Amino acid sequence: MIIVMSGQATEAEIKHVIERVEECGFSAHVSRGVERTIIGAVGSGERREELKALLAAPGVVDVTPITHPFKLVSRQIKHDRTVVDVGGVRIGGHETVVIAGPCSVESREQLMETALAVKASGAHLLRGGAYKPRTSPYDFQGLGIEALEFLEEARRATGLPVVTEVMSTEDVEVVAEYADMLQVGARNMQNFSLLRKLARTRRPILLKRGPSATVKEWLLAAEYLLAGGNPDIVLCERGIKTFETATRNTLDLASIALAKELSHLPVIADPSHGTGVRSLIPAASRAALAIGADGLIIEVHPCPERALSDGPQSLDLAGFSGMMRTLCEPFRAMAAPKGDVKAA
Amino acid sequence: MIIVMSGQATEAEIKHVIERVEECGFSAHVSRGVERTIIGAVGSGERREELKALLAAPGVVDVTPITHPFKLVSRQIKHDRTVVDVGGVRIGGHETVVIAGPCSVESREQLMETALAVKASGAHLLRGGAYKPRTSPYDFQGLGIEALEFLEEARRATGLPVVTEVMSTEDVEVVAEYADMLQVGARNMQNFSLLRKLARTRRPILLKRGPSATVKEWLLAAEYLLAGGNPDIVLCERGIKTFETATRNTLDLASIALAKELSHLPVIADPSHGTGVRSLIPAASRAALAIGADGLIIEVHPCPERALSDGPQSLDLAGFSGMMRTLCEPFRAMAAPKGDVKAA
Amino acid sequence: MIIVMSGQATEAEIKHVIERVEECGFSAHVSRGVERTIIGAVGSGERREELKALLAAPGVVDVTPITHPFKLVSRQIKHDRTVVDVGGVRIGGHETVVIAGPCSVESREQLMETALAVKASGAHLLRGGAYKPRTSPYDFQGLGIEALEFLEEARRATGLPVVTEVMSTEDVEVVAEYADMLQVGARNMQNFSLLRKLARTRRPILLKRGPSATVKEWLLAAEYLLAGGNPDIVLCERGIKTFETATRNTLDLASIALAKELSHLPVIADPSHGTGVRSLIPAASRAALAIGADGLIIEVHPCPERALSDGPQSLDLAGFSGMMRTLCEPFRAMAAPKGDVKAA
Amino acid sequence: MIIVMSGQATEAEIKHVIERVEECGFSAHVSRGVERTIIGAVGSGERREELKALLAAPGVVDVTPITHPFKLVSRQIKHDRTVVDVGGVRIGGHETVVIAGPCSVESREQLMETALAVKASGAHLLRGGAYKPRTSPYDFQGLGIEALEFLEEARRATGLPVVTEVMSTEDVEVVAEYADMLQVGARNMQNFSLLRKLARTRRPILLKRGPSATVKEWLLAAEYLLAGGNPDIVLCERGIKTFETATRNTLDLASIALAKELSHLPVIADPSHGTGVRSLIPAASRAALAIGADGLIIEVHPCPERALSDGPQSLDLAGFSGMMRTLCEPFRAMAAPKGDVKAA
Repeated sequence: MIIVMSGQATEAEIKHVIERVEECGFSAHVSRGVERTIIGAVGSGERREELKALLAAPGVVDVTPITHPFKLVSRQIKHDRTVVDVGGVRIGGHETVVIAGPCSVESREQLMETALAVKASGAHLLRGGAYKPRTSPYDFQGLGIEALEFLEEARRATGLPVVTEVMSTEDVEVVAEYADMLQVGARNMQNFSLLRKLARTRRPILLKRGPSATVKEWLLAAEYLLAGGNPDIVLCERGIKTFETATRNTLDLASIALAKELSHLPVIADPSHGTGVRSLIPAASRAALAIGADGLIIEVHPCPERALSDGPQSLDLAGFSGMMRTLCEPFRAMAAPKGDVKAA
Repeated sequence: MIIVMSGQATEAEIKHVIERVEECGFSAHVSRGVERTIIGAVGSGERREELKALLAAPGVVDVTPITHPFKLVSRQIKHDRTVVDVGGVRIGGHETVVIAGPCSVESREQLMETALAVKASGAHLLRGGAYKPRTSPYDFQGLGIEALEFLEEARRATGLPVVTEVMSTEDVEVVAEYADMLQVGARNMQNFSLLRKLARTRRPILLKRGPSATVKEWLLAAEYLLAGGNPDIVLCERGIKTFETATRNTLDLASIALAKELSHLPVIADPSHGTGVRSLIPAASRAALAIGADGLIIEVHPCPERALSDGPQSLDLAGFSGMMRTLCEPFRAMAAPKGDVKAA
Repeated sequence: MIIVMSGQATEAEIKHVIERVEECGFSAHVSRGVERTIIGAVGSGERREELKALLAAPGVVDVTPITHPFKLVSRQIKHDRTVVDVGGVRIGGHETVVIAGPCSVESREQLMETALAVKASGAHLLRGGAYKPRTSPYDFQGLGIEALEFLEEARRATGLPVVTEVMSTEDVEVVAEYADMLQVGARNMQNFSLLRKLARTRRPILLKRGPSATVKEWLLAAEYLLAGGNPDIVLCERGIKTFETATRNTLDLASIALAKELSHLPVIADPSHGTGVRSLIPAASRAALAIGADGLIIEVHPCPERALSDGPQSLDLAGFSGMMRTLCEPFRAMAAPKGDVKAA
Repeated sequence: MIIVMSGQATEAEIKHVIERVEECGFSAHVSRGVERTIIGAVGSGERREELKALLAAPGVVDVTPITHPFKLVSRQIKHDRTVVDVGGVRIGGHETVVIAGPCSVESREQLMETALAVKASGAHLLRGGAYKPRTSPYDFQGLGIEALEFLEEARRATGLPVVTEVMSTEDVEVVAEYADMLQVGARNMQNFSLLRKLARTRRPILLKRGPSATVKEWLLAAEYLLAGGNPDIVLCERGIKTFETATRNTLDLASIALAKELSHLPVIADPSHGTGVRSLIPAASRAALAIGADGLIIEVHPCPERALSDGPQSLDLAGFSGMMRTLCEPFRAMAAPKGDVKAA
């Protein structure tokens, strides 16, 4: 932590800061200048948070951290890339993984038709919402347990492991019983109670980036899961909120490369929510893989114009099948730089 | 809902859309033009969501809603302004209400000292976090039930009703037992499970706006509470995330005037989180009242430089007392336009 | 400048950075830690820019400035507040200044009617666009010199000094001939050629904040004007671009208090562009004054629904007159904290 | 244009709007509903701007355009993709074009060394700033004409056509004399005087997207150039301003696919400014090509840590050479969907 003090700071104020730094378990290195005095707090004291509060001390003009606040998610702790096994499908390894299915499970027929089709097109995992976070209380809220049962049936029929969202601490057990991977939705990325509970399940977690979360905040949300005991975390970039309205969100593809530079966890992309525009999804998917994403999650519906949620951004069965043919492995192999990023 | 179709849309495509509109319970008014054909879906059909999905139908280029999606929060439903009673303090009435206290309850002494001081300075309600949503799992997470007990003691000592955050559905009962008003934090604004549970408590709710929530999304979050049976909702603007880094968030004061134009619910401002800069808080507080806010929530700590959370944006006891003297009633009376906005 | 180096940085890498710091005219203070080594570059060397480039040197993980990059605009250089005289009207002094008039000058009649009305309602300066920056080349682009002549006539008729926008270096002379104050529009805030030319006129400048400019970038744009020789600069906050679409921009009122804390220049608010919503303008104006703005600039049109630009955000003559009655001086006097901010 | 009126609008108000619509040269189609009345303004009247102002008319609650505001840049006007010839290099055709060189021309030696190296690595065009838009007036502002002469010399030595920025209407002639392509910087995207002047040169233009410009605003800036007579426009996405601070900007790669869907103009990416982080540039470049970009513009410096501008985001000569080897043609061929997007 670096504490920057005003050039007008008195000796007493500087002394006070030095004492506080030492009280918090760090050693203080002072560099006096005309315009500013710099105090470096060096060491591994536990009370970093208290150092930050020194911004409120007289004479202090800035407090800047010099190390990343996350630990277990960091590549500095664990250089080897993590590979997460979801019902036998490995995310973060050499193969690109595609998760596909409807936004919401609407009926047995809709799910089955979609599941069989995405399996035939080459998807590796099946998605489908049973509990839906909806902006309006009057929108379709999901079929709940009935949907979980349909998902289980679809898994048996297709062999595809199932990913589905869990919205509440109270639902964690039941969803974990049915699903192979539990998804934390973007709006729940900083629902810390939910994270703490999910840290104690045995299921792998798909952690979506919040619409206004920095990469650092996203990694710290993952840190909650790892610190709580769950090492099987896959990150998912799904677009952030910006002033641009032509797309539903702004897909921050560079964040995928950045997250993989900072962390050993696998990262996938969600171009469906990331763009919200059906025609852009195939190109955005290719770009995501080219920048190093370990996989994709794609919304597919047999008849998007009758979807109860996210119709405009859902591919139909033929559209998904067409897209999958453009994502052949050589493409990605070529994209991967020197085997480094993908060295599992 | 207005469905805009391409000038190249075929008769069959137009006919298909008309049929779907009618199937959803609306009547279709068609205006054909050279560049575009417009289909107005008029009526009170329940299946608005399905109309939106028509964006995925062939020939459709846009689907635009023409009415607001919220109902119970709207001033069109209830023109009289709502006044929320919190332990005898009325929010949304003629008087400005000030909620003050520490970000986190850190100890019995810290809370007591703060509570007595803010009471003496004129605060109407006491805030203090027992369960803290923290970006990092390594930061102070709150004292939990112990803090709730200190809060109860502080209420007895000062007579100030207590506002505190509830982070999880599982904590709702216990927090409701101790607190007079339950706060939904910004990051939980779209934690719909929590909203549904809070809709069923008897306690009034302080609903913070999410850092990337539009005013419309914020009102729809309140709609969850009202639709679920809780009419005692106070909205709180606490700043949104933008590119500006000199302040912690960008306090969107105009959203207060807008929320009061659209809704009958009271709205208060949180200039502590909204700016994150101690020196700006008094001026931002005055501006919030001038634009029509019904109250303020302010972080106060006896020694901000030792605070375990939010030190840099906390006022000390003297700072809070000084600010309160600049918020005298005549100021606000003058600010209020023609008794309209405040007509309780 | 603080240069943060990795804990793995070699002695040679550290030595190289120290040499470069000294080569740039600073002295280097080194604090070695396990995780990071901190090098403080202290002194008043001119080659700050080269220090920043050290981020590209091996072993360096961060370079952080510790002083503000602006000089002449800073309150540290000139503590007394600047008062700018525009044709006899003082901006930044004890009185609130209101600039009003149409977005575009559309005709002699439209301008005259507006000018007389805003004068009668108490405005101090007249605004009106002669050269209009329009997003589309097909929108009304302004009447040019003809409009300047109408503005001159309106000044003679009302006695109100005139503020108008200059969009191009080539127009500076002619606009300066007619106008009392030259406005730099938001989209030209970083048109550095224009700033350099305006630095050499004798006219005061109204410098609007760019829609994506930080407060720091805004002050640095003003620094171009001061450093080039023009001390008569008034800053204007007019809203920034964010994800919120219910308002045209997000009026960042806290930036006014912040700009006045950092700089001695006067700051006014533009609630017309800042909100883009007519009904919010009076309340936003009061809030701007309450937070310390030295004045307001307001769009007024005799018949907003026939305006060739910005109709939806223009007040009509009665609306402006009504608003002015709510901005009485006592209001502002009460808002001003301890005479400090306004100590001219 | 669709005009939405309140359900409470009177007959007189509706009649007034219909008359205004017809006065502006459109025909009015009215659909009356309980909650809203919709008036479609159909036709090709010129006075669209006046229709928008109807938002200010009594009873009107919304005015929504139903066609895009741009014409000449649109694929609806010209379906064939535009190919821009820059000194013999074709941008927008079947080959990926790479523009490379230093941010600023700092000296004859620096430029020559870079030019020869990027040529050897396979770049097609040389970039280099002679006039630099700098946030601070105290930063290096470019060598001006001297730099233009060095660029000409580098072109003779390498055969690479030259791209350089023009910041002011007054510099257009001189820069056009030396350069093969003129760049409009991001902060000048809406410098309409500059756009109007550049519309009349014979040189192709590289139009960068503004840091807070929507795709629509970007295309309208291009419309200024086309409408003014210059058909040789290349668009360049260079990142937008968002809340994320780990990257300098947020590279909005989906906007490239979107711009190519809406317009026939070529689009390239600037991952140097788009990320601001050297290590992310190769991966972001591959992603840009995968999403359909026609080329790249990359900052390269012989010694980034001594660069007078943008050092941290500049590749060194070896870094650029290494990256170029990962951008082989087959990669892009595979990325291109069905020959459609690239059908020149």
